[in-house]
Order: sequence, then C-alpha cells, then structure tokens
Amino acid sequence: MSGEIKALIFDVFGSVVDWRSGIIREGEAVGRRLGIDADWAAFADGWRSLYQPAMQRIRDGGRGFVKLDVLHRENLVEMLEKFGIDGLTEAGIDDFNLAWHKLDPWPDSVEGLTRLKSKYIIATQSNGNVALMVNMAKRAGLPWDVILGAEVVGHYKPQPQSYLNACDMLGLAASQVMMAAAHNADLVAASECGLRTAFFARNDNGPGQTTDLAAEHDFDCVASDIIDLARQLGC
Amino acid sequence: MSGEIKALIFDVFGSVVDWRSGIIREGEAVGRRLGIDADWAAFADGWRSLYQPAMQRIRDGGRGFVKLDVLHRENLVEMLEKFGIDGLTEAGIDDFNLAWHKLDPWPDSVEGLTRLKSKYIIATQSNGNVALMVNMAKRAGLPWDVILGAEVVGHYKPQPQSYLNACDMLGLAASQVMMAAAHNADLVAASECGLRTAFFARNDNGPGQTTDLAAEHDFDCVASDIIDLARQLGC
Repeated sequence: MSGEIKALIFDVFGSVVDWRSGIIREGEAVGRRLGIDADWAAFADGWRSLYQPAMQRIRDGGRGFVKLDVLHRENLVEMLEKFGIDGLTEAGIDDFNLAWHKLDPWPDSVEGLTRLKSKYIIATQSNGNVALMVNMAKRAGLPWDVILGAEVVGHYKPQPQSYLNACDMLGLAASQVMMAAAHNADLVAASECGLRTAFFARNDNGPGQTTDLAAEHDFDCVASDIIDLARQLGC
Repeated sequence: MSGEIKALIFDVFGSVVDWRSGIIREGEAVGRRLGIDADWAAFADGWRSLYQPAMQRIRDGGRGFVKLDVLHRENLVEMLEKFGIDGLTEAGIDDFNLAWHKLDPWPDSVEGLTRLKSKYIIATQSNGNVALMVNMAKRAGLPWDVILGAEVVGHYKPQPQSYLNACDMLGLAASQVMMAAAHNADLVAASECGLRTAFFARNDNGPGQTTDLAAEHDFDCVASDIIDLARQLGC
C-alpha cells in the first residue's frame, strides 16, 4: 500500500494539536488579566461547538467563503456575550482569538511528522486558514512541506472539493494521497473522494468524549498515534 | 527596519534556484536518450522566453488562470517543434516538463533560508504552481514555512493582487512583509504594493545577461546573496 502513497494530508485541530487544552489555557490567562472566574472548559467547548454551524452556512452557499479566523472571532464574541464577559477591548478580543494559533502539538506529533516527511510530502488539510496554520507550525515546530486546507482550496471540509483540490494542487491522483485524522467523518469523506485513509484516536474533546474513540470504518491504516503511523508506512 | 518584518517572501526561479543550468542538464539527458544533438542552452533560453508571454495572456484576462505546469508544457511543445525534436511520447514530454521541479538551489540558498527561518516566516512568492514548488523544495532541501505564489493567490506576478493576497493570507500588513528577489521589476512591483524589498544579484540568465546585474532602485536591503541577507536581518 505505502508504495503508491506520495503525500499525507492531515487534519490538524484535535488530530495534530490539542485544541481544547490550549483554548482553556488562553481563557484562564484572559480571566486572570480581567480578574474574573469562569468555567473555561465550558467556554472552550462552547466556542468549538459554534465551529461547524459557522462553516455550514458557507458550505450551504448562504455565505461566501471567509477564513476561519473570521468565523472564530464572530463565535468568540458570541461566547463572551453568553458568559457575560464584557471587559475585553476589540484588540483584546483579537488577541484572545489568536489562541487557535498557539495550540500545542500532541507529544508524538512533531516526531511522527518529521519521520513521515523523510519519505512523503506532508501537508495540512485543515479548515484553519493559512496564517493560523503557519503561526501554529512556527510555534509548535510542525514541519509541514506545504499548507493546504480550506483557505487555499476555497472549500471547507468535508466538501469533496476540499480533498480533490488538495490532490490536484499536489499534482497527484487521489489514490496517491492519504488523509490522516482522528475523526471518522473526515476520513469517510476523503475515502469517498478516492483518497487513502489513516485513523489514530485522540481524546481531543475532553473527558466527556463519546465519539471518535476508535476507527469505525475499514480505513487503510489504523495507528495508535502519528509515530506509529510513520512506522507502519516505513519511516 | 528588521524589527517590523515578520515574513520574507521569495521569488524562486533564478533567485533561489538556478533554472538555466537545470533545464540545460535535463535537455542534455533527453538528447542522450533520443540520440540527438541540440543546442540545449538555446533550447533553455527559448523555453524561458515563452514564459512571460504565456502568463501575460492570463494577466490581461484573455485566458482564465491555469497553473504554470500547464503553460510550461505548452511552451515545451512549441520549443520541440521549433527545434525539430519529434521523438518524445506524450509521457516523455510530461517527464521533460518536470525539469522545472528539479532545479538546483544556488550554493547559499539552503543555508540562507534556514537562517532566516529561525526568525521570520519564509514563503515562496513564485509564479510556479504548488506541486512544482513542493517537489522542488523536497529535492533541494528548501525549508519553506509555506508555499504561496500564483496558484494559491490566483494571480501571476507582477500583478498587485499577487503580492497583496500573499500578505493577507499571512495575516500581515504589507509593511511587515519583505519581497526578496534577484529581479528589479519584481521588487518594484512589490514596493508599489507597500512591501519591503531585498535585492541580491544572480547570473541566472547565463553569459549573455545584461539586466538585473545590480540593484537599480532604492530597495530596503541590497545583499550579495541569501546568507548575506540573513546576516543583515539579524539571523
């Protein structure tokens, strides 16, 4: 199998980086600066819960494409109102919104990606925009060969064009590209476009997580983490 | 000056890699396979001379955007006809066209870019398409943080949108981005968009080169090569 694969494209939020701990950490820092207490875990989960609906309006054609930083900021304003947090300036909200640029990688991510990079093209296939992915990669040491994903291809996952345009930009057939993620639905959508698939579970949604704890479909590769994925692919 | 700069975006053909030697080398290899003699330097110069006119039709709106691999292949077919070379199959022409993916870096490029990467975002700002830039970088060891350029931003240089969209994708103001190139016209166009500029001369057009042998405008930085540029920018 690995002989045909030329590139791996990765989901990032939850799969490569731990979004939830990072958002909670930034929320706690904001709380300390404002001198307020809040349930920052609930805040993080609420902020994340607005993510799919915001993209869905764009997928449905009800809104033109806007980058994720914009959607995240709109959702942040909604969350601040919901939690009754009104002490932030516009610049303070901008700064809080950059929490998504400062997420930490899972412990195996940098080593696993570095090993994969020795043999394959490795790319982001995230709904995050370019600046978000670049700033995150610089801070976290993620050694991407190329930043692809929603802003570059003009479509949010799981729309087929998001996967197919990524393959086209790499100059590869879908069968030469493996989508890697900790989320079953992302991989099913990629598989339906002809891509290879690799699953590794993450507890990215915190203690209450009930989905994506295991592979639920017949993916090409099921690994324990990205280092194990690299090993299975001969790196 | 360097305190405001967050990213450097690079012209690639001629500035970071030696296109002419690479194309001549691939031409000679094709000639050996076909058992023919040709003036491969003239072939390389001719192929390159069709580059700007092909993009100009797209800049002028006479043709929708197509990636450079496609333009290069059309121009290659024209050159093969002009030189009376008819021994290549369609797959052989495809393969010859990949010569642009296999260009060697100038001796200072990898070290210079690696040093700059320690402090700045470094990106391609090339008219080359994504697959071309990625394949070139993998082979040559060019450590880009992100592949930008024509295919990603949808415009060929020197159109203003090519520079402005690159800054927007990086989430930066034009004044925070430095365009680096061995070509005066590229830098003048970037400067008119508000970007910072860095010039370093290359003899990328061979022994007959008469232009771009020195900086002809008041650029923010004039360096002897990319290592010198890194040094001037504190890396």
